[in-house]
Amino acid sequence: MARTAGSHSDITGPKVRDAALTLFARHGFAAVSMRQIAREVGVQVGALYNYTPDKQTLLFDLMQSHMDALLEAFSDDPAMPPRDRLHNFVRFHIRFHHDRPDAVFIAYMELRNLTPENFTNIEALRKRYEDKLEAILRAGVSSGVFDVADTKIATLAVIAMLTGVNTWFRSGGRLSLQDVEDQYWQMVRKAVSAESPA
Amino acid sequence: MARTAGSHSDITGPKVRDAALTLFARHGFAAVSMRQIAREVGVQVGALYNYTPDKQTLLFDLMQSHMDALLEAFSDDPAMPPRDRLHNFVRFHIRFHHDRPDAVFIAYMELRNLTPENFTNIEALRKRYEDKLEAILRAGVSSGVFDVADTKIATLAVIAMLTGVNTWFRSGGRLSLQDVEDQYWQMVRKAVSAESPA
Repeated sequence: MARTAGSHSDITGPKVRDAALTLFARHGFAAVSMRQIAREVGVQVGALYNYTPDKQTLLFDLMQSHMDALLEAFSDDPAMPPRDRLHNFVRFHIRFHHDRPDAVFIAYMELRNLTPENFTNIEALRKRYEDKLEAILRAGVSSGVFDVADTKIATLAVIAMLTGVNTWFRSGGRLSLQDVEDQYWQMVRKAVSAESPA
Repeated sequence: MARTAGSHSDITGPKVRDAALTLFARHGFAAVSMRQIAREVGVQVGALYNYTPDKQTLLFDLMQSHMDALLEAFSDDPAMPPRDRLHNFVRFHIRFHHDRPDAVFIAYMELRNLTPENFTNIEALRKRYEDKLEAILRAGVSSGVFDVADTKIATLAVIAMLTGVNTWFRSGGRLSLQDVEDQYWQMVRKAVSAESPA
């Protein structure tokens, strides 16, 4: 299919992804057509197929690049005390997710619309991220500063709590993101701490 | 519009709601047509309009009855110690939500598809439920057994953590729902507790 004039893949590719992200987040993957995405980008629908073979691939690419960016952006230092590593994780998670509300919304909501193979791939990336938090919790349990019955469950609980900030926090409200980070940190710290530290 | 034979509202009404709930949860509200709902129920599409004026009303009714059932099912006793009231809330929330995965999924995911007026109504019901937990946290802060900087934020954090169980818990896995309730209770209890109780 011929490209429309001026649609260079280095410019149009990101535009296609941005348009798909916005539309999927607003209306849901199943309700958005390739035609709507093309209209949003300002290209003919045929031109979209230079950038993606189909809508499923577009969804998968959005989710995969979100997870890749998350894994790439997080850095942990196993030499640091577990409590400091956990503090770093809490701040990082809240801030990273706050900056990408549409990508986060889609990453959770559209799992049901992935093909089984794509779902397996995204789940593996998500598990890699969860494993990073679980490693921190394990280190703290080993050294006696943390006390949780099951580090896997504590991992899922902490991540759900932190990701929940996206559902209610609005910049310019009565609390700054820093206030929110501080308060969630206190709750997470206490939730996993040993009550009588070794 | 004439009713199709045998479609008594006391039987078909719940069937319509069940079908809509299942289809909305599986495909998303925007992707489901009244025709698909009618097919799932086994009636003509015209017959659906005996039970609901439109798809928006159907979505709103599902969300509203979910929230009404939640508010109706929860019972709290302000005479009990705050810690016991919180324990009761944690167990109740996990169990109630576990039993209704589709309704919970829709209650969070399809807010974007409500009309502004319907959204305001659902938000008010959600706020009434959040207020019940916040009242417990306030009582505990007053009596010195809990220590949270902001009871509203702690409320949202606890609810997000507990609702998150729905995204990963599967009956028949390595943990029973009782195990999960116990572990979440320990985390919630510690997260909001005063570290040096009065």
